[in-house]
Amino acid sequence: MRHMETMRWVDGCLEILDQTLLPGKTEYIKCEHYTTICDAIRRLSVRGAPAIGAAAAYGLALGAASLSPAGKAEFVSAIEQIARELCDTRPTAINLQWAVDRMLQLLHEQTTDSVEVLKETLLAAAHAIYREDLASNRRIGEFGEKLIPPNVSILTHCNAGALATAGFGTALGVIRAAHQAGKNIHVYADETRPLLQGARLTAWELMQDNIPVTLLTDNMAGYLMACGKVDLVIVGADRITANGDVANKIGTYSVAVLAKEHGLPFYVAAPMSTFDLNLAGGQEIPIENRDEREVTHFAGHPVAPAGVKVWNPAFDVTPHPLVTAIITDRGVARPPYTKTLPALVDK
Amino acid sequence: MRHMETMRWVDGCLEILDQTLLPGKTEYIKCEHYTTICDAIRRLSVRGAPAIGAAAAYGLALGAASLSPAGKAEFVSAIEQIARELCDTRPTAINLQWAVDRMLQLLHEQTTDSVEVLKETLLAAAHAIYREDLASNRRIGEFGEKLIPPNVSILTHCNAGALATAGFGTALGVIRAAHQAGKNIHVYADETRPLLQGARLTAWELMQDNIPVTLLTDNMAGYLMACGKVDLVIVGADRITANGDVANKIGTYSVAVLAKEHGLPFYVAAPMSTFDLNLAGGQEIPIENRDEREVTHFAGHPVAPAGVKVWNPAFDVTPHPLVTAIITDRGVARPPYTKTLPALVDK
Repeated sequence: MRHMETMRWVDGCLEILDQTLLPGKTEYIKCEHYTTICDAIRRLSVRGAPAIGAAAAYGLALGAASLSPAGKAEFVSAIEQIARELCDTRPTAINLQWAVDRMLQLLHEQTTDSVEVLKETLLAAAHAIYREDLASNRRIGEFGEKLIPPNVSILTHCNAGALATAGFGTALGVIRAAHQAGKNIHVYADETRPLLQGARLTAWELMQDNIPVTLLTDNMAGYLMACGKVDLVIVGADRITANGDVANKIGTYSVAVLAKEHGLPFYVAAPMSTFDLNLAGGQEIPIENRDEREVTHFAGHPVAPAGVKVWNPAFDVTPHPLVTAIITDRGVARPPYTKTLPALVDK
Repeated sequence: MRHMETMRWVDGCLEILDQTLLPGKTEYIKCEHYTTICDAIRRLSVRGAPAIGAAAAYGLALGAASLSPAGKAEFVSAIEQIARELCDTRPTAINLQWAVDRMLQLLHEQTTDSVEVLKETLLAAAHAIYREDLASNRRIGEFGEKLIPPNVSILTHCNAGALATAGFGTALGVIRAAHQAGKNIHVYADETRPLLQGARLTAWELMQDNIPVTLLTDNMAGYLMACGKVDLVIVGADRITANGDVANKIGTYSVAVLAKEHGLPFYVAAPMSTFDLNLAGGQEIPIENRDEREVTHFAGHPVAPAGVKVWNPAFDVTPHPLVTAIITDRGVARPPYTKTLPALVDK
């Protein structure tokens, strides 16, 4: 997206676009302390796997800046504690852990005893993670664009756009790149209950870029395909395991099954920071369960009987046999993923 | 449901439970004129195929009562015009047309010239349609209950309950009958966007009957099945064609595809008034498209960007190969439906 930054570093603070208020209001949350970033991640003011990775990196830098330790050892110990707090905010997207681990590894590699230099190093690393994510998304767009036919109708789920990343987006990055290449694209956006990231964020992003988009409720995706209105599906990812299983926003799995039923390609777009090759398969991915009120209330209004029991997993796992290809910033991986994913990592 | 009537005839008026206000408020709309019933059907104050059939029958009786014709011919002509207006309110559920056609046929069969007698005949017919629907649902429950294992987890979509009928329900009638037979049932209720009949009506009905129910968003159904939490699916229907294709609330088709993927039985429960054997297949069923605001707004609040394009079909068609069996008030039909459905009709 050209007009709105997911987050921005201003005068020693991180400003986070409060996505819970979109599209009605565009307000930034000024984060002077890392705990404000933790809160923003937990309440989904910033969401999307790559974006929460970058926000956590800035959180560690911000936490570092606030420390006045007696020496390096105390500094490192405090940073490790802050890192744990950041990693505890949300369990499913691996990018958060990836960003924090990268920062910690860099910290441990430093030979200097100057805490000030270490603070600067961490902030520079956070900037690098943010900047690199934007570059990754542009590469995902370049690789993915080649898979998109010249006249095409694409279904996407949730928001894997500029707002889910440092910019440009993963799934929407592929769509943007294809649109910029002059292809004739129509996007169908699942609204994505319970928090409507498809309606509030994806439709909004695409309208700002003048990419044709039609909104539908999640339960319409199957009939949309049956009516012949979809040529392919692209979604983002929160964690991809060694066998190519994909954790992503709840509902992704249903869309993948429907794509298979209709013989449609099902593409996943994600940067290398989303891969967790330490896990053999999706059954090992921790799936976050969120507050029942996300389902039972809407803009503060109850929409279900008081006291009703609710099941509210925030993510699901799409098994690799349903995934046609994974579009990464290092190229496109196809099955068998146990061979092709390690090859990308070693690239 | 024991405690609340979908509609009731009081002092020459039809009172319709305003289901748009449930579960927060239980208010009845007093219909002194058939046009109030037309409005109530259009705005979904009364919804569910059998319920709108019964409401339309009362509409015709109410319209008849208001006429002061010069003679029988003028009376019949006016009734036929009212019948057209009632049938035009909603196109997909055939029960509405079925009820109106039954009333008109009865009218044409009468040899009396007394308009007062004809008015009484139409009102008696409306009462009969209402009463018979309740009896039908109890028979659906008896036939369907035999298909339900003693310990079972059932997924349902939308509301095919007491509120969708004259009482007891079709899909929920089967669930009620099995519960009353002492079976250990847990129901998972899709919330059913855009208008949340699953959250607002199904969860509410089941909680009133102390039948365990868990609410989920529509896009969670696939992952719920993948987690092994569903044994079978039961839904209602708005129209069933000669080959066994089923029109029902949007999202039903997606659930049916997901049931197939997971090897789960997919049952449809409906009275004979839902069958339209004049149509060869589901592609001939008119599918109602409804107002975009149902998707873009929630309790009056916008939840999508202003001006976004929306696709909002109210129903979809589930092709017969996905339907394990159809539970009717005359017995259970199994494939091939082109043979078994006519046999039920002739029973």
